[in-house]
Amino acid sequence: MKKDLVGIKELSRDTIRTVLDTASSFKDVIRRDIKKVPALRGKTVVNLFFEPSTRTKTSFELAEKRLSTDVLNFSVPTSSVVKGESLIDTVRTIEAYGVDFIVIRHSSSGVPHFIARNVNASVINAGDGTNEHPTQALLDAFSIVEKKGSLDGLTVALVGDIFHSRVAKSNIYLLSKFDTKIRLIGPPPLIPDMSGYGVEVYHDMDKGLRNADVVMMLRIQTERQSRGFFPSLREYFTYWGLDAGRLSLAEGNAIVMHPGPMNRGTEISSDVADSPQSVILDQVTNGIAVRMAVLYLLAGRRESE
Amino acid sequence: MKKDLVGIKELSRDTIRTVLDTASSFKDVIRRDIKKVPALRGKTVVNLFFEPSTRTKTSFELAEKRLSTDVLNFSVPTSSVVKGESLIDTVRTIEAYGVDFIVIRHSSSGVPHFIARNVNASVINAGDGTNEHPTQALLDAFSIVEKKGSLDGLTVALVGDIFHSRVAKSNIYLLSKFDTKIRLIGPPPLIPDMSGYGVEVYHDMDKGLRNADVVMMLRIQTERQSRGFFPSLREYFTYWGLDAGRLSLAEGNAIVMHPGPMNRGTEISSDVADSPQSVILDQVTNGIAVRMAVLYLLAGRRESE
Amino acid sequence: MKKDLVGIKELSRDTIRTVLDTASSFKDVIRRDIKKVPALRGKTVVNLFFEPSTRTKTSFELAEKRLSTDVLNFSVPTSSVVKGESLIDTVRTIEAYGVDFIVIRHSSSGVPHFIARNVNASVINAGDGTNEHPTQALLDAFSIVEKKGSLDGLTVALVGDIFHSRVAKSNIYLLSKFDTKIRLIGPPPLIPDMSGYGVEVYHDMDKGLRNADVVMMLRIQTERQSRGFFPSLREYFTYWGLDAGRLSLAEGNAIVMHPGPMNRGTEISSDVADSPQSVILDQVTNGIAVRMAVLYLLAGRRESE
Repeated sequence: MKKDLVGIKELSRDTIRTVLDTASSFKDVIRRDIKKVPALRGKTVVNLFFEPSTRTKTSFELAEKRLSTDVLNFSVPTSSVVKGESLIDTVRTIEAYGVDFIVIRHSSSGVPHFIARNVNASVINAGDGTNEHPTQALLDAFSIVEKKGSLDGLTVALVGDIFHSRVAKSNIYLLSKFDTKIRLIGPPPLIPDMSGYGVEVYHDMDKGLRNADVVMMLRIQTERQSRGFFPSLREYFTYWGLDAGRLSLAEGNAIVMHPGPMNRGTEISSDVADSPQSVILDQVTNGIAVRMAVLYLLAGRRESE
Repeated sequence: MKKDLVGIKELSRDTIRTVLDTASSFKDVIRRDIKKVPALRGKTVVNLFFEPSTRTKTSFELAEKRLSTDVLNFSVPTSSVVKGESLIDTVRTIEAYGVDFIVIRHSSSGVPHFIARNVNASVINAGDGTNEHPTQALLDAFSIVEKKGSLDGLTVALVGDIFHSRVAKSNIYLLSKFDTKIRLIGPPPLIPDMSGYGVEVYHDMDKGLRNADVVMMLRIQTERQSRGFFPSLREYFTYWGLDAGRLSLAEGNAIVMHPGPMNRGTEISSDVADSPQSVILDQVTNGIAVRMAVLYLLAGRRESE
Repeated sequence: MKKDLVGIKELSRDTIRTVLDTASSFKDVIRRDIKKVPALRGKTVVNLFFEPSTRTKTSFELAEKRLSTDVLNFSVPTSSVVKGESLIDTVRTIEAYGVDFIVIRHSSSGVPHFIARNVNASVINAGDGTNEHPTQALLDAFSIVEKKGSLDGLTVALVGDIFHSRVAKSNIYLLSKFDTKIRLIGPPPLIPDMSGYGVEVYHDMDKGLRNADVVMMLRIQTERQSRGFFPSLREYFTYWGLDAGRLSLAEGNAIVMHPGPMNRGTEISSDVADSPQSVILDQVTNGIAVRMAVLYLLAGRRESE
């Protein structure tokens, strides 16, 4: 691994495999009675979230604590950003505290990359604008491999607002490095041009789901409705929602994924969300193992320097 | 103990005694120079507070840290609840993080019970609506036993807004399991029908305090005044406030309790709050020991499964 | 050391030297791969911030974690202060939790002293009104000694709003205990009468900087502009801002300090802030070492009692 994890785009297939293998060991750890290892004792991680987040921040925080790091949480309203300090001064100050890792989420694409170039600490992108959310794609890959044995030879359908979704982007970058068929399903204004990544586009959900091994639903940002991307939540569900009937068009043993939090009844029906085919809660658990693996591998790379 | 601690109602007298005995050992621990034991190392506790709280949350957090657990704090404004996720999805997600304990406070009665039925983690009720606040009643019992040697044979007077108080309810449920005389003192609209628990009701405070061994004052929610439960804070104090003169009607060595935070001059005078008969700060210290005991016993029960 | 650190005024020169020597050992610790020592394991620190703060709070929190203490953070909006409890009840409650250290910031001068007199825990003033900010002065002294070998024989120029600055006050108290020339530079309404501390006052920045060994810039509170202390930020910079031209009037190897967060272009130009003469980021790192030293020495004093 390089010094930072800012995106999936930059990762080789071998590095991705190393992360998934390492995460597999950490999944054993977090299943134990004592879910903790002293691997990164004495290291300090700052979680720097410029966008509100519960899920990703909690997952990182647990991963950090289970590796025995010291954790500092910054969120925007309490940070000195409000005092008019520049982002780069904030980050340099954080580095001067003797921090080893900066986990950052920001509403502008590219901020983690900018910070990574300006500090010696390892930077982990926890979501930047509409660009990437690399640890989400890694935990999704881990969850697929866990259920299907491999990414190769599968057909993965991503459904919904691909255009605004950093989760979708990172997944597309990751899957395109493997022998995986990628289908993008959604209304035309929400499907970006990803033709460079060998994707197939479907504006008809029934056709797109046919024979899929993995159905990856995306969270719909209901606030986008007012901006005219779709007429109503009810109509959205009619065309792009996943219910039991539609799921039956996919492979019989297809798995259903969702990055959460779900809008039940908008992009996914409750029966599907709670069905045996759903691996949505596995994704939550796997997120901790994958983030432990990323922190651990970045730390090892730093040690060996 | 069962998997969860959702109320005092469900506890046997033997279980209560076990909690108090265990708390006694932990009180020794927190008096030491190093106030910490590794008993629950590697366990994770989530403090999930849907109502603002400083006192109870801090007390739980200290209890957790002194047992060496990892602690995660969720409070409503930062939780994904704001993104419209359902309570049950929030809690299932928390469980998928591999959490061992969920400490929950909620403004609706019954929420901890609902969650307890839906997760494998141990749920501890830190206050639900006007229903119960079991760890407060346990720490109150501990404080009484510490000063009086036993709950049996005592006369305990609860004074104030019993109707809206979960603290009062849990104390009544607890004391009624012992050979304790329970008196409820307050204006008629603030005294609920608890006749099933062998209580005596007094609408005259002077009479109610006579020969009491324990005077348990309740915090008055000053915002209830506007809803007409009482005419003014001054008048409230005249009829239901505890001052030195009134306290002299109780037994000479009666102890004075208050769950805090106090409204000095509204339900209790400063000279009483700071008098040698007051055990109000002991209650704060004992709260940590009792919550350590509850966490420890629930963990032991889980191990032995 | 006494029980508390409430101000520099009360400290002897010997005590200051002991703090700086101890901080020097801790600076070695925080440069190591494992930046942590078990020195204060089992101790509990409460950070009680009644004013928003990122920098100082983070620095204390890291110092506490690197000494292996348990850390509790209280900030005003979540504290029970909002429930109308008095300050002294809040603090007594905190003490009843079994807390060893209270780190307090408050907008009123004298609050830490008041609390120190009322609790057994050690109180550390993290800034009170316009009075003192003792750990900042100690870290500033540490940073000067680190670069210049000693405080004695130096000329230190403080520039800006001395009147409202607790940082400036604590620095003046500290430097006046050594053989250091102290110059105060700024517009007349922002220079208080500190004639008892042997300071020289300059209302012409160019003259005040001549031959200075240390230039200590103060953060300008831009909100004071509306109150008429200075006409505009642009004019402020013209008269009292530090740029490369002005810095050339000081000694060639003069160091530039700033407590942060900086207003680039208002009190300091970017080229000076980022120049090799700037020790601004060293101050951040040193702050952790100095706060570890203060906690450690106060704890040792407590043990020996």
